[in-house]
Amino acid sequence: MPVYKAPVEDTLFVLNDVLGIEKFNNLPGFAEVMPDLLEAIVGEAAKISEEVFFPLNLSGDQQGCVRRDDGSVDVPNGFKQAYDQYCAGGWSGLSVPEAFGGQGLPYTLHTAVGEYMSAANMALMMYPGLTNGAIAAILVHGSEEQKQTYLPNMVSGLWSGTMNLTEPHCGTDLGMLRTRAVPQSDGSYKITGQKIFISAGEHGMTENIIHLVLARIEGAPEGTKGISLFIVPKFLLNADGTTGKRNGVTCGAIEHKMGIHGNATCVLNHDEAVGYLIGQENKGLAAMFVMMNEARLGVGLQGLAVSEAAYQNAANYARERIQGRSLTGPKQPDKPADPIIVHADVRRTLMQIRSINEAGRAFMLYTALQSDIAHRSPDASERQKAEDILSIMTPILKGVMTDRGFENAVQAQQMFGGHGYIEENGMSQYVRDARIAMLYEGANGVQAMDLVGRKLAANGGRAAMAVFKEIGDFCEENRNNERLAPFTKAIKKGLNDLQAATMWFMSNAMAKPDNAGAGATDYMHLFGLVILGFMWGKTAKAALEKQDAGDARTEFLVNKLLTARFYMERMMPETAFRKARIEAGADSVMALAADAF
Amino acid sequence: MPVYKAPVEDTLFVLNDVLGIEKFNNLPGFAEVMPDLLEAIVGEAAKISEEVFFPLNLSGDQQGCVRRDDGSVDVPNGFKQAYDQYCAGGWSGLSVPEAFGGQGLPYTLHTAVGEYMSAANMALMMYPGLTNGAIAAILVHGSEEQKQTYLPNMVSGLWSGTMNLTEPHCGTDLGMLRTRAVPQSDGSYKITGQKIFISAGEHGMTENIIHLVLARIEGAPEGTKGISLFIVPKFLLNADGTTGKRNGVTCGAIEHKMGIHGNATCVLNHDEAVGYLIGQENKGLAAMFVMMNEARLGVGLQGLAVSEAAYQNAANYARERIQGRSLTGPKQPDKPADPIIVHADVRRTLMQIRSINEAGRAFMLYTALQSDIAHRSPDASERQKAEDILSIMTPILKGVMTDRGFENAVQAQQMFGGHGYIEENGMSQYVRDARIAMLYEGANGVQAMDLVGRKLAANGGRAAMAVFKEIGDFCEENRNNERLAPFTKAIKKGLNDLQAATMWFMSNAMAKPDNAGAGATDYMHLFGLVILGFMWGKTAKAALEKQDAGDARTEFLVNKLLTARFYMERMMPETAFRKARIEAGADSVMALAADAF
Repeated sequence: MPVYKAPVEDTLFVLNDVLGIEKFNNLPGFAEVMPDLLEAIVGEAAKISEEVFFPLNLSGDQQGCVRRDDGSVDVPNGFKQAYDQYCAGGWSGLSVPEAFGGQGLPYTLHTAVGEYMSAANMALMMYPGLTNGAIAAILVHGSEEQKQTYLPNMVSGLWSGTMNLTEPHCGTDLGMLRTRAVPQSDGSYKITGQKIFISAGEHGMTENIIHLVLARIEGAPEGTKGISLFIVPKFLLNADGTTGKRNGVTCGAIEHKMGIHGNATCVLNHDEAVGYLIGQENKGLAAMFVMMNEARLGVGLQGLAVSEAAYQNAANYARERIQGRSLTGPKQPDKPADPIIVHADVRRTLMQIRSINEAGRAFMLYTALQSDIAHRSPDASERQKAEDILSIMTPILKGVMTDRGFENAVQAQQMFGGHGYIEENGMSQYVRDARIAMLYEGANGVQAMDLVGRKLAANGGRAAMAVFKEIGDFCEENRNNERLAPFTKAIKKGLNDLQAATMWFMSNAMAKPDNAGAGATDYMHLFGLVILGFMWGKTAKAALEKQDAGDARTEFLVNKLLTARFYMERMMPETAFRKARIEAGADSVMALAADAF
Repeated sequence: MPVYKAPVEDTLFVLNDVLGIEKFNNLPGFAEVMPDLLEAIVGEAAKISEEVFFPLNLSGDQQGCVRRDDGSVDVPNGFKQAYDQYCAGGWSGLSVPEAFGGQGLPYTLHTAVGEYMSAANMALMMYPGLTNGAIAAILVHGSEEQKQTYLPNMVSGLWSGTMNLTEPHCGTDLGMLRTRAVPQSDGSYKITGQKIFISAGEHGMTENIIHLVLARIEGAPEGTKGISLFIVPKFLLNADGTTGKRNGVTCGAIEHKMGIHGNATCVLNHDEAVGYLIGQENKGLAAMFVMMNEARLGVGLQGLAVSEAAYQNAANYARERIQGRSLTGPKQPDKPADPIIVHADVRRTLMQIRSINEAGRAFMLYTALQSDIAHRSPDASERQKAEDILSIMTPILKGVMTDRGFENAVQAQQMFGGHGYIEENGMSQYVRDARIAMLYEGANGVQAMDLVGRKLAANGGRAAMAVFKEIGDFCEENRNNERLAPFTKAIKKGLNDLQAATMWFMSNAMAKPDNAGAGATDYMHLFGLVILGFMWGKTAKAALEKQDAGDARTEFLVNKLLTARFYMERMMPETAFRKARIEAGADSVMALAADAF
């Protein structure tokens, strides 16, 4: 049976020692938690994750969701009770402003604890996860009345939310969507059309479901310029705000998926459903992107979360499974064999996963902190810089952490040999669940194109230059520190590859945009390798400082430095490979006729 | 719905033009098929694969296998009929000597057509696939009487075979196995013990199932030196050779697996089952390795096969799915969007899969040809050289083609976006099926250790040096060919990396074996990259020669050269990365305490 233990010590080390979160005490919501409450909240999140969410993970996968003939959907046993405990604990509104019933605490903290919950039960955590995206969109684009009407019950978790974007013929290219909105005399709209792949689209876990639906108002322009965003509640509201009669949105089917079986992925049919415009007519895409960006960070976090859960099980198995002997002589001569963790190839695998997870955790929290600064800092230039970094990190984080997260889950499964292929052992579920994160909220190729085609060039390349400068400065400032030099040297080498690849795009992709497309995925991973390296650099620096200060976490700090070294030696050399691929250009990529494939 | 079309033109090009199979007409079984019959046989294999095996692939996955309370197992609908057609076509004994009812044709041909059948329906093809391994073991180690008793019915497919090796507590380390064999007065043995993960272990598709079972004879030494191999038929044979009463081997359960649902993976309980020793007492491991090596080639072939099937579906989807516009302006301005194959990142993905598949097919058939030479050549030194190459290629082929095959299936699924995650579209099945190939018949880490710890050093490194020489000679001979130089230059660079990594092991792994273990997986992939590059070099040379000869396959040949170029530009640079990781050594890999993971 699989196990899961939330990595509390590591989270606190990243927040306190690597990112120095106490330096941000000037931001609203930060002073309230530091330092003591931070540890208490993270500890409570660990508890609900381990004790409430995790025991339902494998059973939820095996039971799955079932649509009844009346269109209602049964979620796996125990999900509603676990969700209720989640809401009762105040987790649903952790970082939402207090004005709408939230706790106003840092989004960084929301992210830290979200990792545990997604690791413990990804399919379950998606129900409140989707609500968070919907809350974000209403907060930014909703009218004051809409905020008052919907947010308190969504924040408390009494109601949940969804994103209704995809249609059978369009996902990435939402400009083609066909769902129609017909204006009514009372200011509302009648929405008609079919949406697919709607996560948490129908269930009985909440009193109401607030669907945020992209549709085209009759007569609106074609393409993305004619798309508007609507609130379509499952149950219409009475004048007093209580839930009234059923709206014209029904679940037509639930999908048979490779994984996340515990989450109801629905076909939703809108049949003259009553909808209310959010924000301006034909500006729906901007409102949608508020949800989408939030969701992309959440999906990147899923990549990390599942990778961590899979890693823990692989490490346990490697310690327990006895099979064969160490190449350097028996390590347990009194037993019939040694545990497989004695083998260098097993350790190489575990170190690889670990070196991505720990740096990935720092990357997630570093990015979440940019979001807090961007939304809460009193200083406009600080806000802008943080917004820049957040904006360029979003596709990297989503693409890289989900590609790596899946790869790590596969490698963790590999530790189990044939036993990894048996569903009861839980490793297959991690692989199947992690797989979706590379696909939804923009497939990773779309993230790569967003990075290369949009984020890199935005504002004259301001965001990329800010990141390059931050990393370059770190290397420069610490180059004379003898103990840090092995790390800064490797990071600098990776940064040089990244900057060279960036220059190559500038020189070669203007005249020939396919040169950017052909290198986009490699560039995203090159960027990710450097960012994760930078996180290891910051981690090593913090570990050395703590060692010098006589910190009691002796072994923890030594292991951080060893894992940082592993990353520099074994992972960073990939930057040169990625750069070489990028510089190969698009010619051989584009040469074949479409019919030749 | 998924589709599959056997790549007949490519297979024939590899056999005839790249490998020059007609040069081997002196080997028994070769002259019979060339040149005309070769094409006819491959065409017939394509037909049964596409028309009989493939239509049962998705339905077989969805239906799976069911164990009844009496221990019998139902396979998916249609499997028995398809299997019967396979046997009626003579496919089961294609390369088995005519003396036992086979056709005595080249193993290379058996491999070529096996790709199609595994691509069309991997779970179904495993039933006869396991029989082939059992046949091989009996052919090499069985007594004349055993051969006469079992082979004809196994070769015709009337009976099937299995490999009973794994027990709950041991898989890789068979020295720990506990299944006991007690000698009986009539020369037979009573076998008692539990075996798990037995593919095709129980079913009603054949009249009898011939289990080959590893067990320890009472009083035999501990460890691998005390293991013997036994024939344990499901039904005992009457004196006239017909099947008689049920033997004491029963299916206790079938596993719930991530994939290959159509194959019955059984727990087999041996309860004083009657068994007959094959070969010598306590020499069972050697006999087992005959099956195992055969199986490893078959598993590598599964990696290629599923990758090819997944690729075809990804390419079709990329041509059909319209979404977004080309970066270089609309390609179908009259339609609402362009097909996604216009995007460089989509093509990059397809080219990557294709460049592995086509070279992988050449690699498979090149290796199968070594097997034919090793077993059939009249020249002892030719046989030895071929045996050397076969022996070192086996772990590389198994490890690299299954790692790449899975990766390719995942990338092909990625083309579909969210639709790839829906079971009905078939891409999930390819990923789930391909996953097992990395695990069974020795997990890929075991292959890497077999390569580095055993095959590389065997006979003073004779096999590796033979391969290096063959590749080096190819580069040398063609370096002055202007059109081939871009290929030979890249291959030579990769070969240099491979040789440097080999030297690094020699200098660093003797005193410290963990340096070999820590680099084993990277070395296996480095070797694989160079071999696949070499296959592209041979392919490019053949394509250029055919072009010069005015061959009519104009576009086919141009595409070969373009794909070869893609491989050199985009895949070969990985060799330097792998070399850098190997040379990083074991220090940071082995540094952490086991409890720190």
